[in-house]
Amino acid sequence: MAKSSETFWTEDPAEGLRVMPGFQLSDRATDATPGFQGRKAEATAALAEGATILSGLQEKLFANSRSGDNRKILLVLQAMDTAGKGGIVRHVVSAVDPQGVDHYAFKAPTDEERAHDFLWRVRRHVPGAGMIGVFDRSHYEDVLIARVRHLAPPDEIEARYGAINAFEQELIDDDTTVIKVMLHLSFDVQKDRLAERLDRPEKYWKYNPGDVDERMLWPAYQDAYQVVFDRTQTEAAPWYVVPADKKWYARIAVQHLLIDALSRMNLDWPAATFDVAVEKARLAAT
Amino acid sequence: MAKSSETFWTEDPAEGLRVMPGFQLSDRATDATPGFQGRKAEATAALAEGATILSGLQEKLFANSRSGDNRKILLVLQAMDTAGKGGIVRHVVSAVDPQGVDHYAFKAPTDEERAHDFLWRVRRHVPGAGMIGVFDRSHYEDVLIARVRHLAPPDEIEARYGAINAFEQELIDDDTTVIKVMLHLSFDVQKDRLAERLDRPEKYWKYNPGDVDERMLWPAYQDAYQVVFDRTQTEAAPWYVVPADKKWYARIAVQHLLIDALSRMNLDWPAATFDVAVEKARLAAT
Repeated sequence: MAKSSETFWTEDPAEGLRVMPGFQLSDRATDATPGFQGRKAEATAALAEGATILSGLQEKLFANSRSGDNRKILLVLQAMDTAGKGGIVRHVVSAVDPQGVDHYAFKAPTDEERAHDFLWRVRRHVPGAGMIGVFDRSHYEDVLIARVRHLAPPDEIEARYGAINAFEQELIDDDTTVIKVMLHLSFDVQKDRLAERLDRPEKYWKYNPGDVDERMLWPAYQDAYQVVFDRTQTEAAPWYVVPADKKWYARIAVQHLLIDALSRMNLDWPAATFDVAVEKARLAAT
Repeated sequence: MAKSSETFWTEDPAEGLRVMPGFQLSDRATDATPGFQGRKAEATAALAEGATILSGLQEKLFANSRSGDNRKILLVLQAMDTAGKGGIVRHVVSAVDPQGVDHYAFKAPTDEERAHDFLWRVRRHVPGAGMIGVFDRSHYEDVLIARVRHLAPPDEIEARYGAINAFEQELIDDDTTVIKVMLHLSFDVQKDRLAERLDRPEKYWKYNPGDVDERMLWPAYQDAYQVVFDRTQTEAAPWYVVPADKKWYARIAVQHLLIDALSRMNLDWPAATFDVAVEKARLAAT
């Protein structure tokens, strides 16, 4: 764990969440809380503490970009419906100054997007220097729903894994820290969460009949995720599988991954790019 | 004041801040706190209360967009350097779910942008349905710095006011509530704030020697703002001049303008666009 001021973790969760060679999704618990011994109340306190740390680190990242530091972060969020991608954005990413966040939610591709290579639309939303980019869904949909629903020929799907690795390597070469997160939810908890959306009128808008259609394909999606991990887990662009049955755990875990990535950058305030004494004199004369 | 749950205002500030026919910028105090009798401590409490209200209203706006409601908000922020645009984003806009915010900071136009009409780049960033768009600087730079620094021929500048009014009318016809805010700072307070940036190494990155160059043109900028108000104040796309010497006042005032705009929309949770009983049965069968 890079040095930071987080006090709630008993051990660094990152290594335990990270997908390593031989990883099997089906072996991973969806209700575990690796590295965290507290419960919801402690997680609430941890999230608040982490928000302050994250906000401070992000401001330094942003500040350095003004004097030429090209570094940026891309957080990729993938999951089955109701796993909590939106909650991560609302409760974790919201701690960061909106000026420093580039959030993009990928929907089904438009006709124009379909007329291009699958990475075309993704490239248009990669974060610039000093930014934290957040992809709510991503290019991985092109090997998840596309594979499960046969939206492209099998050889085209096969080719995409390599294309994704090459694309992410480009981002890394452009000083991007790539953090890929799969929120790992159980089939039963998804049912509970969908049922809640159908029970509460203020949640109807989050429900889509298509959610049940996708749910019926659950095993195929789990298989497709396993292939994603087998083919696109790289040292430079790691995947993290975050247990998501407990929303509070998933939030502090993803927050930690962001804090850890920023802490490893060893950010400090940038030096003045001007002569401070000269500028003080110029200002005094006005 | 539209009905809302805000409790800290003694009277609706919106009417007092709004630019009306005959408005003179030079008559407006920069250190007043119209509608608010408290001081900084009360403003902190008001900001926290308002954040909860704003967040709840925005979620309804967003939810309705999913079932075809086309409404959206565009907040335009204009000001002299150090007046607090960034603070508004960081402390007011940050209350809103990042998924519902479209923030864009306009810089000096690129070569590609310069090769097009001045509104070309602006159109690319207008908010979509359900979103709160925030422009940190805007098309008004094209009649502010462009006028003060003669970046375009006088007849071209003259033509832009009409183009801006037509453009904003288009946005309004597309169900956009347009809120234009000028943060009104005094010449002396700007000096203090620039001096602070030169005194504190963690603030150096916010300082640019060009800030003093612009400061030396202060009267010309005030005149250019006056022309903006004379020419682009409309009933449908009002300007609000918000005293900004006290940062805490400017923040709660802009927050109030957003809350007020959302309250006037009479938002409720959208009805289900599917048969709830049918969906419950489908889900139960999985």
